[in-house]
Amino acid sequence: MPRAVRERQMLDAAVSTFGQRGYRAASMDEIAELAGVSKPLVYLYLNSKEDLFTACIRREAKALTEAVRAGVRPGLPADRQLWEGLRAFFTHTAENPDGWAVLHLQARTHGEPFAAEVTAMREELVVFVTQLIVVAAREAHRDPSLPEREVAGLAEALVGAAESLAAWANATPGVSAKQAAATLMNFAWAGLGDLMEGRPWSPPVAEGQTE
Amino acid sequence: MPRAVRERQMLDAAVSTFGQRGYRAASMDEIAELAGVSKPLVYLYLNSKEDLFTACIRREAKALTEAVRAGVRPGLPADRQLWEGLRAFFTHTAENPDGWAVLHLQARTHGEPFAAEVTAMREELVVFVTQLIVVAAREAHRDPSLPEREVAGLAEALVGAAESLAAWANATPGVSAKQAAATLMNFAWAGLGDLMEGRPWSPPVAEGQTE
Repeated sequence: MPRAVRERQMLDAAVSTFGQRGYRAASMDEIAELAGVSKPLVYLYLNSKEDLFTACIRREAKALTEAVRAGVRPGLPADRQLWEGLRAFFTHTAENPDGWAVLHLQARTHGEPFAAEVTAMREELVVFVTQLIVVAAREAHRDPSLPEREVAGLAEALVGAAESLAAWANATPGVSAKQAAATLMNFAWAGLGDLMEGRPWSPPVAEGQTE
Repeated sequence: MPRAVRERQMLDAAVSTFGQRGYRAASMDEIAELAGVSKPLVYLYLNSKEDLFTACIRREAKALTEAVRAGVRPGLPADRQLWEGLRAFFTHTAENPDGWAVLHLQARTHGEPFAAEVTAMREELVVFVTQLIVVAAREAHRDPSLPEREVAGLAEALVGAAESLAAWANATPGVSAKQAAATLMNFAWAGLGDLMEGRPWSPPVAEGQTE
């Protein structure tokens, strides 16, 4: 079996174990058993529990940011791009709950340098959202009246809201990725005020995406 | 000197040290020195570094939730209550950056049971925001069309956005508590869509609060 395939099996097993049992409680024995390999082979390939955890964080962070970028079709109006980005984000976190638990909970609760890996991913998402907001402002010809700092704050707020909602959606039975994305779209785009007045932002029908 | 006063001095010193240097890097020696007491006295009063850290988290969590509750005058319209709550939240986190660093970063990055203490505080804030949204929905006579689950999601989003913005505001020179609160109010109430159309939510003038 090629090394790349074996390594992927080990990382799959490690993400499941770290995500479900937590970084401290997870043992290299159970990760090796779940991956169907010997423990010395895990150490040979990934060096240590710390390095294995770091490799998990990097892989899951890359997969999440790539899913969000791939989900957004450039050229659409900004609200459609935001909707597609949110759909991609919540679909990915719902389909990879162990990966999201590693990124959102485990990587942040076991000190540096793990937390720094997640911070880097987060900054990439903030930059991505910032660009979306700048494009939206340009479309609405509001460029001069929406200062850079306000845009940066809005992007931070949106990313924080998405992180919080993804954790809640994964912990709450019956909340679908589409529902979570629609909730945040209402919150972020139409705003609570408009929502209260019965003017929610509505997802486009027949957009060619699956439920 | 009464025990309560000494203990408060120790906790003040511990919050500063944990917040600025991090839980792992902070030493009991420097906490004792900053508090102006002997190290054995710190151990006598607070038992261990873990117990001291837990006491810091509990005190700062209590202070933050009390500040938010005290900042909101019941009986006002929901958007005013939300604005006052956000003002109180961002004012408190700006005035207590070490306390906020302990809650938002340190308590979450050093495993259980510290993370559980912050989760409890967070749930209290979510319940508080949920009530505000329910009241707003009732004011707008939208009760039947705003399902409980949607309200819960909006509250999670708002709390996540506030946490994210507070960390950003404290790390970004020149961002005031009022600016951070206004950014989130725009985001949460008027919504990005309205903001782009030049219809931001505006804070009331002459509301009797200081800048």
